[in-house]
This record gives sequence, structure tokens and C-alpha cells, in this order.
Amino acid sequence: MEVQQAHEFILHLLLILVAARLFAELADYLGAPSVIGELMAGVILGPSLLGWVEPDEILKMLAEIGIILLLFEVGLKTDAKRLLYASNKSLFVALSGFLFPMVFGFVLAYWLFDLSLLVSLFIGGTITATSIGITVRVMRDLNCQQAHEGQVVLGAAVLDDVLGVVLLAILYDFSVSGGVSLVNVTKVILFIAIFFAVAPIAAKIMSVYVSRLQENSKLPGVIPTTIISLVLLFSWISHQLGAPELLGGFAAGLALSRRFFLPFGIVISSDRHCAECVEQQMMPIIQLFTPIFFVYIGLSLNLAEIDWGSPFIWGFSLSVFVLALAGKMIGPFFLNESIWSKWAIGMAMVPRGEIGLIFAELGRISGILNNEIHAGMVIVIVLTTLLTPFAMKWFHDAYASHLCAEEQVRG
Amino acid sequence: MEVQQAHEFILHLLLILVAARLFAELADYLGAPSVIGELMAGVILGPSLLGWVEPDEILKMLAEIGIILLLFEVGLKTDAKRLLYASNKSLFVALSGFLFPMVFGFVLAYWLFDLSLLVSLFIGGTITATSIGITVRVMRDLNCQQAHEGQVVLGAAVLDDVLGVVLLAILYDFSVSGGVSLVNVTKVILFIAIFFAVAPIAAKIMSVYVSRLQENSKLPGVIPTTIISLVLLFSWISHQLGAPELLGGFAAGLALSRRFFLPFGIVISSDRHCAECVEQQMMPIIQLFTPIFFVYIGLSLNLAEIDWGSPFIWGFSLSVFVLALAGKMIGPFFLNESIWSKWAIGMAMVPRGEIGLIFAELGRISGILNNEIHAGMVIVIVLTTLLTPFAMKWFHDAYASHLCAEEQVRG
Repeated sequence: MEVQQAHEFILHLLLILVAARLFAELADYLGAPSVIGELMAGVILGPSLLGWVEPDEILKMLAEIGIILLLFEVGLKTDAKRLLYASNKSLFVALSGFLFPMVFGFVLAYWLFDLSLLVSLFIGGTITATSIGITVRVMRDLNCQQAHEGQVVLGAAVLDDVLGVVLLAILYDFSVSGGVSLVNVTKVILFIAIFFAVAPIAAKIMSVYVSRLQENSKLPGVIPTTIISLVLLFSWISHQLGAPELLGGFAAGLALSRRFFLPFGIVISSDRHCAECVEQQMMPIIQLFTPIFFVYIGLSLNLAEIDWGSPFIWGFSLSVFVLALAGKMIGPFFLNESIWSKWAIGMAMVPRGEIGLIFAELGRISGILNNEIHAGMVIVIVLTTLLTPFAMKWFHDAYASHLCAEEQVRG
Repeated sequence: MEVQQAHEFILHLLLILVAARLFAELADYLGAPSVIGELMAGVILGPSLLGWVEPDEILKMLAEIGIILLLFEVGLKTDAKRLLYASNKSLFVALSGFLFPMVFGFVLAYWLFDLSLLVSLFIGGTITATSIGITVRVMRDLNCQQAHEGQVVLGAAVLDDVLGVVLLAILYDFSVSGGVSLVNVTKVILFIAIFFAVAPIAAKIMSVYVSRLQENSKLPGVIPTTIISLVLLFSWISHQLGAPELLGGFAAGLALSRRFFLPFGIVISSDRHCAECVEQQMMPIIQLFTPIFFVYIGLSLNLAEIDWGSPFIWGFSLSVFVLALAGKMIGPFFLNESIWSKWAIGMAMVPRGEIGLIFAELGRISGILNNEIHAGMVIVIVLTTLLTPFAMKWFHDAYASHLCAEEQVRG
């Protein structure tokens, strides 16, 4: 029986990886973000449709590693300097795009749908963070990355992500302790502050240690094993301090990022080379694990259990969706920009992605969001991600002359 | 509780990876093969000593992926051409070094220690295969790889490994069906023959498909996900046909090897480049998973349960160890070589490694080898691996003038 289990696990993993790749390619071919394809793969393989793969304990752990590594990658690609010196415009777009959806979502859930405080907070939280990945991807496809709007959006999306992770840590702590304690909130914020202040020092020690070990060791595989250990260590510490594991992944990624330098202008010469080989060797591992996370979310959805006839789910998701749009569009209209740029920036901030899905998933696992609300939130995330690329492409084609000025000079 | 489990799993994986690296480096520093360090890490973390990590289901699955990927790597680094055109000397050394230990081990266990047929066959099987990895490593350390003896040993070790895997498949089938059926044995041999005949065609289709996908896909991560899928697919097919999963990993590796060409001189031009990038991107993943396998073996050992006072375990392991030495040393003495070369070749064939550990582990999992015999076999493998590098270094230093002639001309 034990041997059979191994072979079943192999089959499940095979189905997950193949379906994820297949539907991601299909989504990409149809002009949708590939993450949608991976979610669909899970929905199709899981109890919602075919029932071939159950979201079991082992897959859950692999998915957990997947989220942590995904946040590690986000951290690795986050420009800490840009984070520190984000322009006022980015800061404004980030803060408004964080606060409005949070408040809108909370108010809607708490007062209109009469949900509990914690559920309403999770609903608000789920729609706060713009997906850097999807936004960057869409802007690259439209050749807008180097344009003025692109720079504002990128800075805002990065800040936004950090705010989202901080909020997630606070809500996670809240969900565990069961009340809004000022002490706990302060503790979490303090922890995150200390964590991010200590990270550079840890990074210095670790990167020196790793590169020294790599130079001196006659054994292969230094980078994959030590860096994964580092990520797991940070995740574990993060959990021990009351924050979700993935925050540790993000901190480890940020610390190892090639654009991360120590304060006071201290630059370690070995850092740059090390950061490059870390990225090169970690990417295959990250790329292997992250689809498992998104497919796992699809597997856990169980759309078959949801009463699609109930007006609640439709009313709920559609109203949250409208607020998720509005929450991101309001801020940019207060900027000193042309009307087209305001629209472009607002639209680019709409896609929710990884952080939103992690919010929803954490809410589901801890029993805060029931099946119906979880599915509703995933529908909202999918809609923001699915529709934005098409909307942006249409807007860009229609008003190209007013947009991406810098790109046209450069291009 | 569920969330806590994830954090416990993260801690266990962290401990495994860190301990594996630490003890592997320590073993290497002390002049022992690193695999010994990884086994020790498992013994120390597991129930034998500290009891911090239990060999649970999830780790078992990761270890399973680890073995499969290890065999994939062995396949990837196996020179199929050298396998086909192995010199007569290599063929003779391989066959004698396969048959003598098998027969010696079987006779000892069956007649002297009065063990059952299946147990005796597994004991014989465990000491058949020379560890390519360790042998190559030791020869490289002694600068002997390009020498005449090195070539003979390398060819023999490769053949030997294939014979070991074939024997493992037969014994596995035997252990499942419960009897020595000529039909089953023929089936397994036939399957392996067909499998290895079909592999090139599969490789052609797959490599063309993978490289085409990689060229056309705008999504990252084609190689890690598709190649792991391919390995899992071959492993699953292998299981479905009655052979152990790891044979599929070996076949997939052999098929994707950069030295693997289709028969009749058909060379696919895209193959070489593809094989290189496959190796480059797969190595971090392989290097991450394989230590988990060796640590897992250490975790499963439970040396605390063994009665170390019983004369059986000492008499058993030491007599198997002597036969494991003798079995590999006899063959080379019939070669037309100088007495020093005979000794050098025989010694280089002594280290047992991955295949032996896999034999022992499969025997343990299927309940064929009890705790005591399993531990005894692991002790034998550890002794062959631990002592050989020291013995070879001493022999090489003492008789250098008579050895590695070609190397001295080249070097």
C-alpha cells in the first residue's frame, strides 16, 4: 500500500504539472494571464470537475513551499532602493490603492452583507494588493514599462505589495489571537520593522557565508540547498513571531535581491555575482513549485459545492468586483497628470494576483472565509486579472498618442 | 492545527537540508564521501539519536522524488555510447563484479545464515552495483580518471549500474508477485528491453517538443516543469509495468543525456543545446532533492532498536563486507594487466552507493529486510564507501610509478 501511495503521488504531481503548463500556455495564447490557466487546471483536475486529484496534505505542503518561494521571487525582484525612494506619486497611488479597496470591501461586507468583523477585514484585505507580476507582465506586453506611467505604477505596485503583506501579517495574528489587540498589532508592525531592519545584516552574513562556502566546497549544490534553507529559516522565524511564513520568504528574497545594498553606502563586492548565480539557480526550483500553489488553490475551490443559483454569490462577487475597480481608480484622479495617464495608471493597478489569492487561501484554511465567500473572492481576483489586460490593450490602442510618451521617444 | 503542521514541516525540511550540508562538508573535510555525511545527518536527526525528525509520509514522498531524480542524474551522466561499445575488459570486470558479489552474498545469507530465499536475493543484490558517483569522485581526486585503469573502471561501473537496476526491477517484481516466475522475469527483462528501445524515440519526440515549446513559449519555467513531468511520467509508466519507479527516472535521464544519440547515426541538431540547458536547469532541483533521500535513509535506520550486543549483526555485516570486497576483486585478476593495475581496478570497483542503498531501502519498505538486516546492509555499504578512498589513496601513493601511466604522460 505504501508503495502504491508513492506511485499515486507521482501521478498526481504529474497531472498537476502537465495541466498547469497546458492551461497556462492556453491562457497565454488567448491573451489572458497565465496564472488564470493554472487556477483553471486546479478547478478542472479537482473535485469541482473531474475529481482526479484531491487537495491532500502532501500537496498542501508543496503548495506552501510554492507560496513561500513565490514571495521569495517577488522579494528577489523587488527594488528595495525604489521602495525607499519611491516618488510621491507612487506613494500616493499605493496608499490610496491600498486604503480605498480595504475600506470599501470592509464596509460592503460588514454593513451591506452583514458579515462578521474578521470576515469583512479579510474581504477588504484580499482586494488591497495589486499583482506586481501581472501588472509588469501586461505593461511589458504593451511596451509601456519604461514610460512615465509605467514607473509610477511599478513603484506603487511594489509598495502596495509590502502593505498587503503587512496587513496580512496583522490579520493573521488577529485571526489567531481572536481579537484586535493594540499590543498585537504593534507587535506585528514592530516585528516586521525589526525583521526588515535585521534582514540586511543577515543578508550580508549569509551572502558572504554562501559565496565563501560555494568557493571552497568541493561538493555540488551549495546554492540550491543553502538558499532554500535560508528561505525556510526565515519562514520559520516569521511563523514563530506570529506572522505568516510567506513573509519570511519575501524578506529572504528582498535581502538576496541583486539590487539590495546595505545602508550607508556599504557595498559588498561579492554580492553582485552571488545574487546573479542565486537567481539563476533558484529560478528552476521556484518555477517548479509555484504552479503547484496556484493549481492547489484551484483544487481547493470545489465549485461543485457552491449554490450557483443563490443570488448572494453573484451579488456579492459583482459588488466586490466593482469596488475593487473603483478603489484602485480613485487615487490616480487626484494626481497632476493628463486624463489619459490617470486612466492608464488606475487601470494598471487593478489586477489582483498572488497576494489576494494568499489572503483568500489563508482565510479559507483558518476557517474565516467559508466556501462560498472564498469562491466569491477568487472570482473577483480572476475577474480583475482576466479583464484588465484586455481593457488596457484596448485603451492603449485607442489613445496611444496620449500615452507612453517616453517609450515612443526611446522606442 | 493545519497551519502548525505546515510550520513543523518547514522546520523538518530546514533541519534536513542544513544537517545534510553540514555533515556532507564535514565528511568531505575528513576525506570521506559526502553521502556518508548525509546518512549520518539522518541518523543523528532521526529516532536513532535526537528524535527531532520522524520519517513521515511527506518526507517519504520527497525522498522518493529524490531517488528518482538521482537515478535521472545517473542516467543523464551515463554515456550510452560507452555502454554500447564498452571494451571487453570493462564488460568482464562488470559481469564478474556483478555475479560474484550476488552469488557470494546469496550463498552466505541462504546457507550460512539460514535466511529466506527472497531476503538472500536482496542481500546479494544490495552488494552488486559499484557506485559510479563515488568511484568517479575518488578517481578524480587521485587524478586517475584519464588513465587506462580509470577507463576500464568507468565502463565497468556504468554497465554494473544498469545490471543492478535490471536486477532490482526483477527482484521488485519477485517481491510483489511472491514467487520466481519465469514469465515474470521474462516480462521484466522484456519490458526493460522495450523500455530502453523505445526511450530514444520518446527522447526524440520529447526533446523536439520541449525545445520547440521553450522557443515559442512566452512563459518562463518550461524546462523545469516539462522535464520533471517527463521524469514523473516515465516513473509512473515504469511502476505500471511492474518495475520500480526509479527505473523510469534512469531511462528518462539516459534518453535526455547529451551523449545519447539515436541509432543509425541520426543526430538531431537541437539535441545538444537542449541537453545542456536541461542539465543546467535540472541540477539545482536534483541537488535539492537528493540529500533528502539519503537523510531519509538515515532517519529510517533507527539504530536504537538494534541489539548491538548480538553477535549476529556483527558476524553478518563483517562477513558480507568481506564477500563484498572479494566479489569485486576476483574478476580483475583474470585480466591481462600488471599486478598493480589488477589491484587498482579491483579496489576502484569496491564502493557501493546509491543503488545499494536503494536496494536496501526497497527491501525494508516492502518488509523483506527486517530492521537488523537492513542496518547490517547499510553498515556494509558505508564500510565499502568509507574505507575505499583511504585504501586507494594509500595504494596510489605507494605504487604511483606503476599506475596511471597515461595520466603521467598527459599530466
